Amino acid sequence: MRISLIGFGNVGRDFAKLLIRRGVDDCVVAIMASKGGVLRRDCMKARDLSRYIENGIYGESMDMGLDDIIDAGIDAAIISIPPSYDTGEPNLSMYRKLLSSGVSVVTSDKTGLALDFAGLMAAAVKGDANIEYRATVMAGTPAIDLVRGLWGREVNSIKATLNATTNFVLTKIEEGLSRKDAVELAIREKLAEPDPRIDLDGWDAGAKLVILANQLGLNATLRDVKLSRFDADDERIRQAIKAGRRVKQVAVADMDSREMAVTLMEVDASSPLASVSGNYNAIEIRIGGDTVSLRGPAGPSARTAEVMLADLLRLKRAIH
Amino acid sequence: MRISLIGFGNVGRDFAKLLIRRGVDDCVVAIMASKGGVLRRDCMKARDLSRYIENGIYGESMDMGLDDIIDAGIDAAIISIPPSYDTGEPNLSMYRKLLSSGVSVVTSDKTGLALDFAGLMAAAVKGDANIEYRATVMAGTPAIDLVRGLWGREVNSIKATLNATTNFVLTKIEEGLSRKDAVELAIREKLAEPDPRIDLDGWDAGAKLVILANQLGLNATLRDVKLSRFDADDERIRQAIKAGRRVKQVAVADMDSREMAVTLMEVDASSPLASVSGNYNAIEIRIGGDTVSLRGPAGPSARTAEVMLADLLRLKRAIH
Repeated sequence: MRISLIGFGNVGRDFAKLLIRRGVDDCVVAIMASKGGVLRRDCMKARDLSRYIENGIYGESMDMGLDDIIDAGIDAAIISIPPSYDTGEPNLSMYRKLLSSGVSVVTSDKTGLALDFAGLMAAAVKGDANIEYRATVMAGTPAIDLVRGLWGREVNSIKATLNATTNFVLTKIEEGLSRKDAVELAIREKLAEPDPRIDLDGWDAGAKLVILANQLGLNATLRDVKLSRFDADDERIRQAIKAGRRVKQVAVADMDSREMAVTLMEVDASSPLASVSGNYNAIEIRIGGDTVSLRGPAGPSARTAEVMLADLLRLKRAIH
Repeated sequence: MRISLIGFGNVGRDFAKLLIRRGVDDCVVAIMASKGGVLRRDCMKARDLSRYIENGIYGESMDMGLDDIIDAGIDAAIISIPPSYDTGEPNLSMYRKLLSSGVSVVTSDKTGLALDFAGLMAAAVKGDANIEYRATVMAGTPAIDLVRGLWGREVNSIKATLNATTNFVLTKIEEGLSRKDAVELAIREKLAEPDPRIDLDGWDAGAKLVILANQLGLNATLRDVKLSRFDADDERIRQAIKAGRRVKQVAVADMDSREMAVTLMEVDASSPLASVSGNYNAIEIRIGGDTVSLRGPAGPSARTAEVMLADLLRLKRAIH
């Protein structure tokens, strides 16, 4: 398969490393990042890939754009770029163009699916292309597979703790740091997205919630999710612990009323939603009076790349 | 689609109820149970189905066998029959014949898959048929979907509490009943299989474990699983509770050494494996130093039937 890597940060590089380590024989035609790219119509060699992983692509960067990659003839684009929830651009246009041009997509970026799930599916049908996105929610844990497995059944609600950065910040506040210091620490340790609203104000969790809800046919977008500012009171967070509870950022979708929200709320300490910390996420699904709960790791980037490679293998089986 | 129901106990009848309630327009050609069956080449009417659900089929039972159903021309068989792990028969022969004759299968019975997973997959390929079996493990919870979602990744082990009857018996022993009385209570309340070894000695949990492991390419059968007799000491079970632990029947598959076993063991009370009781099951999957855990309901029969209907819908999409 002829592929292009779009985005060459930690995830993109880890994906390239996996291609080399596992001896996957796909032809990498292009690598494209925000500030440039390289294109080799006749496929990059493993040693070229290794050099780019080590030194970056900017030393050999060419003046090229999305059209050049499509014109070079690729079957799939492996996308790992930062989200862009404010305007959706340039992400949305890129997805639409690739899919409607017949280029399949494997992505870890939630922007397109969170803002226009139905539109991307339609573009994929139009272009006879596929889009695989199991790396967008909990990457290390097959949350999307689980929820897809409930297709055809009557799910009442999804409730989830989906953002690792707020997990980290809230734990630090519980341990005594002020909210301001905890957020700064998260940014310093590169746990938070460059724009801290994405994590703290629920854009990231809301985007993941929307992708999960769409698996069950909800046809919703991030604009339908009520997001709340990260305005927790430090003292209340510490009081909760003493009362056997924890304050968590929880994403909720009521499948009947179609109401969706991401808010800070107190959760009983015995709940899977409260039990997660660090990189772990949890989902609780109510279905016919019962509760299905899933708990597991999200990233780090090496695992996200592993899931994207599994998605690429699925794509190949679908295409043959 | 022309279908036949094979097995007409609680699950079979609940499946027939769902067909009526949801107005599914599949043509039910035959219903077959252990002691007889009815066959209508021109499809049963909803009112016939209702009558059979209420009164059973024996009043109108015909002298008929598997060949008669296949000859009547069916696309799929919906199978809900008791397991037969000792010899595998008549279940194994039935699966092989249906699949190699081009009849797809939706099943809640684990026998065939537990004893000859690879053989049934080969028969399905030979007959250009499909076999759907998400009702065989945790029915109400998409455990098989979750594990399939890990395909292509390096899973280290699966550890699970998968049998509701031992959950019930062990809880009753914790509460003070003797082992003998607890088992008798389970049989009286129809929680146990007619042959109590199936639940207590781990055949049921072992069969489910084997089906899960096969999703990850292990190619194992129930004969590869080391089963242990249900020989727990009542006093030890009660002592464990005081020490913050619980005795549970745990099924373990080591994916590297290919060792599989079902044994009673003490589990820390905070583990998902210990937290389940009654109809709830739990699975812990170790993968690259992390743990993915799933918890949710198995039956009852109405839910098993619901999952089988979802499997039938998948089958239709696959065939068109």
